[in-house]
Amino acid sequence: MSVPSVKELLSTNPASQEVVIDGWVKTFRSNRFIALNDGSTIHNIQCVVDFENYDEQLLKKINTGSALKVTGALVESQGRGQNVEIQVSEIFVHGDADPEVYPIQPKKHSMEFLREQAHLRVRTNTFSAVMRVRSALSFAIHQYFQQNGFYYFHAPIVTGSDAEGAGEMFRVTTLDAKRPPTTEDGEVNFKEDFFGKETNLTVSGQLEAEAYAMGLGKVYTFGPTFRAENSNTSRHLAEFWMIEPEMAFYDLDDNMDLAEDFIKSVIKYVLENCQDDLAFLEKRLLDEEKTKPQAERSYMALIEKLKFVSENTFKRVTYTEAIQILRNSKPNKKKKFQFPIDEWGADLQSEHERFLVEKHFKCPVILFDYPAKIKSFYMRLNEDGKTVGAMDILFPGIGEIVGGSQREERLDVLKEKMAALNIPEEELWWYLDLRKFGTAIHSGFGLGFERLVLFATGMGNIRDVIPFPRTPQNAEF
Amino acid sequence: MSVPSVKELLSTNPASQEVVIDGWVKTFRSNRFIALNDGSTIHNIQCVVDFENYDEQLLKKINTGSALKVTGALVESQGRGQNVEIQVSEIFVHGDADPEVYPIQPKKHSMEFLREQAHLRVRTNTFSAVMRVRSALSFAIHQYFQQNGFYYFHAPIVTGSDAEGAGEMFRVTTLDAKRPPTTEDGEVNFKEDFFGKETNLTVSGQLEAEAYAMGLGKVYTFGPTFRAENSNTSRHLAEFWMIEPEMAFYDLDDNMDLAEDFIKSVIKYVLENCQDDLAFLEKRLLDEEKTKPQAERSYMALIEKLKFVSENTFKRVTYTEAIQILRNSKPNKKKKFQFPIDEWGADLQSEHERFLVEKHFKCPVILFDYPAKIKSFYMRLNEDGKTVGAMDILFPGIGEIVGGSQREERLDVLKEKMAALNIPEEELWWYLDLRKFGTAIHSGFGLGFERLVLFATGMGNIRDVIPFPRTPQNAEF
Repeated sequence: MSVPSVKELLSTNPASQEVVIDGWVKTFRSNRFIALNDGSTIHNIQCVVDFENYDEQLLKKINTGSALKVTGALVESQGRGQNVEIQVSEIFVHGDADPEVYPIQPKKHSMEFLREQAHLRVRTNTFSAVMRVRSALSFAIHQYFQQNGFYYFHAPIVTGSDAEGAGEMFRVTTLDAKRPPTTEDGEVNFKEDFFGKETNLTVSGQLEAEAYAMGLGKVYTFGPTFRAENSNTSRHLAEFWMIEPEMAFYDLDDNMDLAEDFIKSVIKYVLENCQDDLAFLEKRLLDEEKTKPQAERSYMALIEKLKFVSENTFKRVTYTEAIQILRNSKPNKKKKFQFPIDEWGADLQSEHERFLVEKHFKCPVILFDYPAKIKSFYMRLNEDGKTVGAMDILFPGIGEIVGGSQREERLDVLKEKMAALNIPEEELWWYLDLRKFGTAIHSGFGLGFERLVLFATGMGNIRDVIPFPRTPQNAEF
Repeated sequence: MSVPSVKELLSTNPASQEVVIDGWVKTFRSNRFIALNDGSTIHNIQCVVDFENYDEQLLKKINTGSALKVTGALVESQGRGQNVEIQVSEIFVHGDADPEVYPIQPKKHSMEFLREQAHLRVRTNTFSAVMRVRSALSFAIHQYFQQNGFYYFHAPIVTGSDAEGAGEMFRVTTLDAKRPPTTEDGEVNFKEDFFGKETNLTVSGQLEAEAYAMGLGKVYTFGPTFRAENSNTSRHLAEFWMIEPEMAFYDLDDNMDLAEDFIKSVIKYVLENCQDDLAFLEKRLLDEEKTKPQAERSYMALIEKLKFVSENTFKRVTYTEAIQILRNSKPNKKKKFQFPIDEWGADLQSEHERFLVEKHFKCPVILFDYPAKIKSFYMRLNEDGKTVGAMDILFPGIGEIVGGSQREERLDVLKEKMAALNIPEEELWWYLDLRKFGTAIHSGFGLGFERLVLFATGMGNIRDVIPFPRTPQNAEF
């Protein structure tokens, strides 16, 4: 524990002082140069071994993946690429890694192969960099909200509400799977289940966050959410983390201002705090894209793209304006869209979102004031009677990264909308209470954390930015 | 949004400047004094109304719980108890709260009643204070680890592993509850379930965190965990949040050092950052305890207790020493323990833990080197062959707040322990891989977040320190 990290050693002034370091071997060249890494940074520390002083049996155990404790003198490096190195005086092998069987050898592995080795893939440069950026982004999120007067609110994960309708749900149960208890009329008797009723994994903490915003003023969630949807895409997970701020007394404009400022701030945080990892990930992306046709490559390098987003104003466009742009667009006129846009009210598909963001505006876009019919019951009806105060933020390469709205605070309007959608009032009695007692305008949004990590790391598949992805037919580890 | 918070206004220099503030009415005295609160602080801002200027209908809507927007001049307060107040020029009622039906009236409510109003209870002083402290503690935890070279790791919530054995689990499923698909031999066919196998909610992210520590060095989880245990006590929840740091190259001493430093640091953070809320909670606790017999009262006031813990060294005692102390203790000799201690190897009950912490040592205690037989398979076997490098931190009034260990890093020893407990190697193939490839000593611990919040707030029931508690027969909201 008193041992310094590689990150610390690399910025220590070398004066031939004795140092001790623990880490894993990245490479061992010429029986002489050990590149050692302990996960604290993308960079390795070079440990120079005089092999004549060591037993051959010991040297044989120094392979990629072996864990070592190295003692030696920290000196100025003679080689290129590093400032300091260790002249090794003592090596202890914590554990070796037989190159015949250790899967993570120093060569290029496919992402698919590494997903099957999700317990080991964090030992690669790419995944360690991604996971450090993920950690930094998480902290940036907490810091942003805490510094801006928000309180962290833990939304319940198991929920008895199934009225939100954000997606298919997973049932949580302790009933016997084969022979569940039944009622007199032969139905499953959920009264005998653990919680005395049918319960599910949450799809969103928003409704509960609203209850807290109406007491604490400004709150945010940051927790796991679940969708039991059979989506095998590079942008969907069955289990993912979501950030959901909710603010009393905020209208839709306030909400958009906050969302934009928030995203820019957390991206600035990683630009400032993850320079080495981002430089590595940028190079990785460039290398990967060299194998792609020109048209599919990113139009900006990773760091340039992050700076662009954090420094430029997001374009705000109403849904109605967006429909006009799309209707008159080349791909629509030339029937290149899979779903042609012909009239107001159509739901936007990802091809349309991409056109707006990547071709038309060439910057992040906030679409707002959507048709009420294609949005959720809790969104505030505008004066026009046909649109709601909803907003989505669309990002290049990612699509929707934020979805939010001003919430319907008027009891009568909310009840009408619920009735129209056959949502029973008993289900959401407590949510209606918030409109009965001290109601006020309020707003909030949800940000899919993994989509933000995808954007910040330039990775291509959402399965590769979460430690152990959960997708249909897959809950290994 | 440009509106300041009550917290900000209360520390603003009053110069009769016009201010606008949103909030909820705490009390409205003499048709003249509105105490307004927006959740940003335990303190209210006094808004002074000249009732002759206002319509009677409007004044009638100003009741406890009503949401208002108040405009007026910020002036030095004439009254006692506050520095500034607002001389009101304009009032807008966002939403009223009919005193005939609004449940949260300005009087004493029982905790049981408030649990049934979990969507509204955060509007009380007690719960708003608790939840602000909870939020501050969360941030302190993240900040501590991030500043000490740890990376935040999101452990999976849905897990296919059921081998950890930390407790009863909840099944996660999308199969038809009434008529699940079956295999040829009549068993439930979990291959048709969403994840292609039987899955459960995690009881601990430790095993997966170990995989990450063996790549990133130092990681921590902070996420929800679940126990399907039918425990209706003031210290158990079915859904709770846990913090689980895991550190490569740490032995048990390092682990204890870290745990102690960590707890002290986060308590210092709330002492520094939550003074007003802690002062309120301290007074609440004193008032509550006045109704109790002397013997059941806390021996220290809340803030004094937090300072004591954050400034004093935890007492470290081996299990073997603890057994000797207990065996020779008065309550044991006088047969006052429900479970008498007569020989080495007995599992300690909470009556024993309380005796050690509250009567014998009168300070937090770290017990370590427990008998292997009463601890988990993954804990490292000591040289004596009968104890393991486990440690528990016991707190006054709370009992076990931390449980940790050095992990068994030796493949052969781990396999033997798993075999003895009939844990199939196939179940944990990936966990064994960590011992095959670059294994090294490592350690970690788990801290039940709600128990820490209980301790820091002086609350008596764990259901009152989490927004929406989940317990047997209860998943409302």
